[in-house]
Amino acid sequence: MHILILGAAGMIGRKLTAAIAAGGLPTNRLTLADVTAPTPPDAIPTTALAVNLANPGIATRLVADRPDLIFHLAAVVSGEAEVDFDKGYAVNLDASRALLEAIRTLPGYHPRLVFASSLAAFGGPFPDLIPDDFHPTPLTSYGTQKAITELLISDYSRRGILDGISLRLPTICIRPGAPNRAASGFFSSILREPLAGLPATLPVPDTTRHWFASPRSATGFFLHAARIDTAQIGPRRAVNMPGLSATVAEEIEALRRVAGQKAVDLITRIPDPTIAAIVGNWAGNFAPARATALGFRADASFDDIIRAYLQDDAPGT
Amino acid sequence: MHILILGAAGMIGRKLTAAIAAGGLPTNRLTLADVTAPTPPDAIPTTALAVNLANPGIATRLVADRPDLIFHLAAVVSGEAEVDFDKGYAVNLDASRALLEAIRTLPGYHPRLVFASSLAAFGGPFPDLIPDDFHPTPLTSYGTQKAITELLISDYSRRGILDGISLRLPTICIRPGAPNRAASGFFSSILREPLAGLPATLPVPDTTRHWFASPRSATGFFLHAARIDTAQIGPRRAVNMPGLSATVAEEIEALRRVAGQKAVDLITRIPDPTIAAIVGNWAGNFAPARATALGFRADASFDDIIRAYLQDDAPGT
Repeated sequence: MHILILGAAGMIGRKLTAAIAAGGLPTNRLTLADVTAPTPPDAIPTTALAVNLANPGIATRLVADRPDLIFHLAAVVSGEAEVDFDKGYAVNLDASRALLEAIRTLPGYHPRLVFASSLAAFGGPFPDLIPDDFHPTPLTSYGTQKAITELLISDYSRRGILDGISLRLPTICIRPGAPNRAASGFFSSILREPLAGLPATLPVPDTTRHWFASPRSATGFFLHAARIDTAQIGPRRAVNMPGLSATVAEEIEALRRVAGQKAVDLITRIPDPTIAAIVGNWAGNFAPARATALGFRADASFDDIIRAYLQDDAPGT
Repeated sequence: MHILILGAAGMIGRKLTAAIAAGGLPTNRLTLADVTAPTPPDAIPTTALAVNLANPGIATRLVADRPDLIFHLAAVVSGEAEVDFDKGYAVNLDASRALLEAIRTLPGYHPRLVFASSLAAFGGPFPDLIPDDFHPTPLTSYGTQKAITELLISDYSRRGILDGISLRLPTICIRPGAPNRAASGFFSSILREPLAGLPATLPVPDTTRHWFASPRSATGFFLHAARIDTAQIGPRRAVNMPGLSATVAEEIEALRRVAGQKAVDLITRIPDPTIAAIVGNWAGNFAPARATALGFRADASFDDIIRAYLQDDAPGT
């Protein structure tokens, strides 16, 4: 099986590549694409390309060899899509549509397409427990672009052009490495930095509740989505992924259990009304019945999320 | 006030033009555009243009004079958008987006935009009574294109580029004139043809329930949406319009009351499994609480719908 990963140099893209290379999916050929050249894994014949999917002709070139399975993770993150209107729409909407159109123009080609969508497709006010059929009413341009791409993938799937599934991912935590421009960054940094003995800032109240998945779980969602029988999904091709609902206080308690009070003491509360207002509109808890029935599995506790981070991303800590 | 109507030569576009000309909205200038030249009303200075909004540069030209209020009714209907993939996306999605982009590029311009969306943004299975926050999961390309345009209008409104509202219209009944390519055509023709002494065919069971508004009510929705305080709407700019929930049997009983058994006898039942399957996925009954609170009003009975048709469209009958 020939697998194409778009956005392969991103955090989840790299972990997904490694999981596939470790036998997570049967493959004899990988194509990895991102705006900076992804690193090919050992052991699998790989083409690594530094290309921008938003540029003319790139989507056509990437699917010309008819990869059997496409992971589409290429995106501008939420903060950047809000600041740069044109770039957000160009990458998150137009490039996605160019990919679908490139597939449509190849007669008889019908790949599985797994798309990284987001709970940003939803916007508040929310019920305490958000059902699978809660209506997408995004409150950011990023969420709008994700929701639109979901609709396109459902329509192209219904028409038999491709076999798509959109994964509405929880906020990924603990995100390794340096902060990106996502407003959700502090959810990771209040754990990641103290685990490394570094100070961290908490801009929202401890009572803030949110919906999380570890990078390990998210990688698992993509592998599972590649193998699933999409006949079970029906025409509603966007699926809310499972996650862990937790407050900031619960995050911090898990940090205390795993790394002690000394780690917790590295967190300083500096309220930021702007971030608090943005995050206050976010979803806190879902009832992901469809995804659970389809076999998707999330983290059981924040202790597990922290331990997965220490094992996968910070083994020297 | 300068008012621009896109799709002004269509059925609702013509009625809306007439209602505005009759004093429904204060205006001293009209611009009417459609693929065939709309007929200017008497009494108001009008520019009537035969243009295709899907062609390059047309949207920019239409908003160059900065109309204060834009009604966007230009569309390819559901049946045609399903048969002709490219045309449907070009007109119903790309032309709509070109309009939004043309507005965005004019500094300081912030028009009210009223968009003709549709209950086709929804797809079954449905609850018996569909709430305002039911999730859009369209099952046609037409519904997909409408749902995407709604999302764009909400995002452009949230960003302060324009002041938009998307009206999710019920099925319009009784549609005057010749049938179009919509699968919903029989809902009108089983009344319209017998009222004119002509035979009509019913392709679905009498128990089929659906959601209706007369052209008169729909015109009223647009006039009301132009005047409304959009601060009351909030960021969810797509609003389910009120309507009348009725079965085919109730339609026929109203026909009997208004026009007698002789009219009813002109209906012949010729089951069409294809149409029955399409219509079986459609919504039967909504609880349009938001629209009602915003002051939108629908028809009270099918007798009223028939009488409105006889007064407005078939006065000689």
